[in-house]
Amino acid sequence: MADIHGIDQELLKKMVYDALVWSSLHGLVVGDKSVKRSGKVPGVGLVHAPIALLPGLFPETHWKQACELVSIFNELVDRVSLDGKFLQESLSRTKKVDAFTSRLLDIHSNMLQIDKKEEIRLGLHRSDYMLDEKTKLLLQVELNTISCSFAEFSRLVSQLHSDLLGQYGEVLGLDSRMIPENHAGNQYAEVLVKAWTEYNNPSAVIMIVVQAEERNMEGELQSDGTLLVDGQAVAVVYYRAGYTPTDYPSESEWKARFLVEQSSAVKCPSISYHLVGTKKIQQELAQPNVLERFLDNKEDIAKIRKCFTGLWSLDDKDIVNKAIETPDLFIMKPQREGGGRFHHLLNFLIVIRLNSFLPFLNKEFINLLQGTISMAMMNKDKVIVNDQCGYLMTTKVSSSNEGGVAAGFAVLDSIYLT
Amino acid sequence: MADIHGIDQELLKKMVYDALVWSSLHGLVVGDKSVKRSGKVPGVGLVHAPIALLPGLFPETHWKQACELVSIFNELVDRVSLDGKFLQESLSRTKKVDAFTSRLLDIHSNMLQIDKKEEIRLGLHRSDYMLDEKTKLLLQVELNTISCSFAEFSRLVSQLHSDLLGQYGEVLGLDSRMIPENHAGNQYAEVLVKAWTEYNNPSAVIMIVVQAEERNMEGELQSDGTLLVDGQAVAVVYYRAGYTPTDYPSESEWKARFLVEQSSAVKCPSISYHLVGTKKIQQELAQPNVLERFLDNKEDIAKIRKCFTGLWSLDDKDIVNKAIETPDLFIMKPQREGGGRFHHLLNFLIVIRLNSFLPFLNKEFINLLQGTISMAMMNKDKVIVNDQCGYLMTTKVSSSNEGGVAAGFAVLDSIYLT
Repeated sequence: MADIHGIDQELLKKMVYDALVWSSLHGLVVGDKSVKRSGKVPGVGLVHAPIALLPGLFPETHWKQACELVSIFNELVDRVSLDGKFLQESLSRTKKVDAFTSRLLDIHSNMLQIDKKEEIRLGLHRSDYMLDEKTKLLLQVELNTISCSFAEFSRLVSQLHSDLLGQYGEVLGLDSRMIPENHAGNQYAEVLVKAWTEYNNPSAVIMIVVQAEERNMEGELQSDGTLLVDGQAVAVVYYRAGYTPTDYPSESEWKARFLVEQSSAVKCPSISYHLVGTKKIQQELAQPNVLERFLDNKEDIAKIRKCFTGLWSLDDKDIVNKAIETPDLFIMKPQREGGGRFHHLLNFLIVIRLNSFLPFLNKEFINLLQGTISMAMMNKDKVIVNDQCGYLMTTKVSSSNEGGVAAGFAVLDSIYLT
Repeated sequence: MADIHGIDQELLKKMVYDALVWSSLHGLVVGDKSVKRSGKVPGVGLVHAPIALLPGLFPETHWKQACELVSIFNELVDRVSLDGKFLQESLSRTKKVDAFTSRLLDIHSNMLQIDKKEEIRLGLHRSDYMLDEKTKLLLQVELNTISCSFAEFSRLVSQLHSDLLGQYGEVLGLDSRMIPENHAGNQYAEVLVKAWTEYNNPSAVIMIVVQAEERNMEGELQSDGTLLVDGQAVAVVYYRAGYTPTDYPSESEWKARFLVEQSSAVKCPSISYHLVGTKKIQQELAQPNVLERFLDNKEDIAKIRKCFTGLWSLDDKDIVNKAIETPDLFIMKPQREGGGRFHHLLNFLIVIRLNSFLPFLNKEFINLLQGTISMAMMNKDKVIVNDQCGYLMTTKVSSSNEGGVAAGFAVLDSIYLT
């Protein structure tokens, strides 16, 4: 978030007003928990989304670097996903302590046994970064391969900031063209349609798995691998849910996931893509000579390695002690997706060395490039799509140790290149 | 609103859910009065706009007729506006009983005295109709020439209905292509830019006059007629307010209106266009041989005359008695715009004969084509724009005598051609 302390108060008020009206008019709204019926009835009790008023400053060189990494990471995810043995072995210890990852590994193991091939592989990834103040390095925090959130909201916030700078940029000395284009929301939709086209069954549908779905649906697998849900063939399954244990309250949900995995439907993500996104795999890939197993191009390997930060699991006692002594230099990440509080999950956490992740722009706020949003689709060996389509920037008050937007610790932001 | 009694309850629930989510995502929202901060802070306490779930059925022949009338009415408004004497004479009696219209006439009279010419004339009109059940005639209720509301909302509702029928049309037996296209919101903006272009001063701005504007702005007229507001030349003035006495709480507002009128800025509407929209002028135009004063084309005159219903002022004692005896056959309209309650304004009302305006589709709801939204721009004798750009349909419960959307008696709707 740009420094707003120097801005005239009248101008600031006008910008806030315009931003909030813009949000109302463009669907940049969320449910307001303080309104009783909100969340129960859609379209009731709406409030503007948590947003930064102005884009966060971000160095253009680092932005270009993050964009360059997109297609390499997409390729890496795909290559790793095809190495079932690597996934099983790397996660063998995690399996013992994390019941959730263990269930995913069971499904994965089953697929290995029946030699299930995913020909059309669809990934909608988000690679998250922080800027290290001391070394000026762009360091990867994590790579998300399932249910990447805020694709459409991030597009809207970029558009809002761009429109605001179109209106007030001159007086602020800011140029709206320095906000990178962001089409994440649209392109997510487009690539799902592309996957549907690739599946090549005009009567089949795209199924989106969401949380809090109350209707029971009957799933069935045909002998040719076609997934039928309520009698309809499914071409593509997009998981907007399924990344967290609470999404599987009973055995039915695990059965459903298993059923989908056995089918010929394009999964976004497949169980393999899902597993590649665990922190443990991220840690394994950072080990010497591991990247070389999956990538051929030496330059690509160097680029990826450059953005790896220190990652340790909590069984490294030295690191744990160091983290206890200097907690500001480390962040803890849960093995899997879902965010929220993870105090009780210490046994399967990964610690990331922060070096000196201090607020990039000023001491009050921390910007997170969280992160580049990308899409990848392969059919057998053929790359059909491998592109960056947008980005998510969040800004949090530096005094908070938590950074979740939905949890209320951070706000949605966009990038202003410097 | 199509008959929903036959629709499966599960399907209905899904459609309602989808419609409300769609509304949230597309800015089809209004302030929720039951939320405390709503209306004070923008972007807070939002709720979906009052909408019909499905479009209202409307005969295609009547729709085509309404569309045909658009350019003729636009021309008529322009011709009448140029006849200052006709406006002053027709409204001379109204002037005595309606203080508001009287003030407008004073400004108009001043402009006549200084022989002020409006070269670029911009009109954003809405012609409202009802369908008469007995005669099957499309009858004009009124012609609005100032602050026509819901241009963007009507566009959104048409889009919502079109999207809903895209999703559920097959099972409902309805075809989304039968909803006429509606670009009112966009085209309003485009025609304002066109007027700005026509004014031909690249450094001049478009000024939008709104209600509840608290900032004081300094207006000044230069010797060449240029209107300066806070030092900026104004090319176009769009009145989103100024149609109702409460918009002029002090002499300052009247002075501002007078200042604008003297300037060379394009006014939407000019004082003349504003006056043409009064019910009294509508009544005068319905008198024998009056249309012939303004239009040359006999076919056009016949088309317009066909949609005139009976209009009487309240000094016609026979009609007043008849209206008291059979109130369902009449509606009362105030002389000027602004809607709301008008029980206390009886002395300058116009009564419109309803014949038998009964619900078109079923007895529970009344659809109002309220109405065709159009834009017209002239430069001297040259017609630059004269087009229909959208429509507003509202649906009200037939048991209510009031029909205002903002007042809570009606909902926004779109048209399904039958």
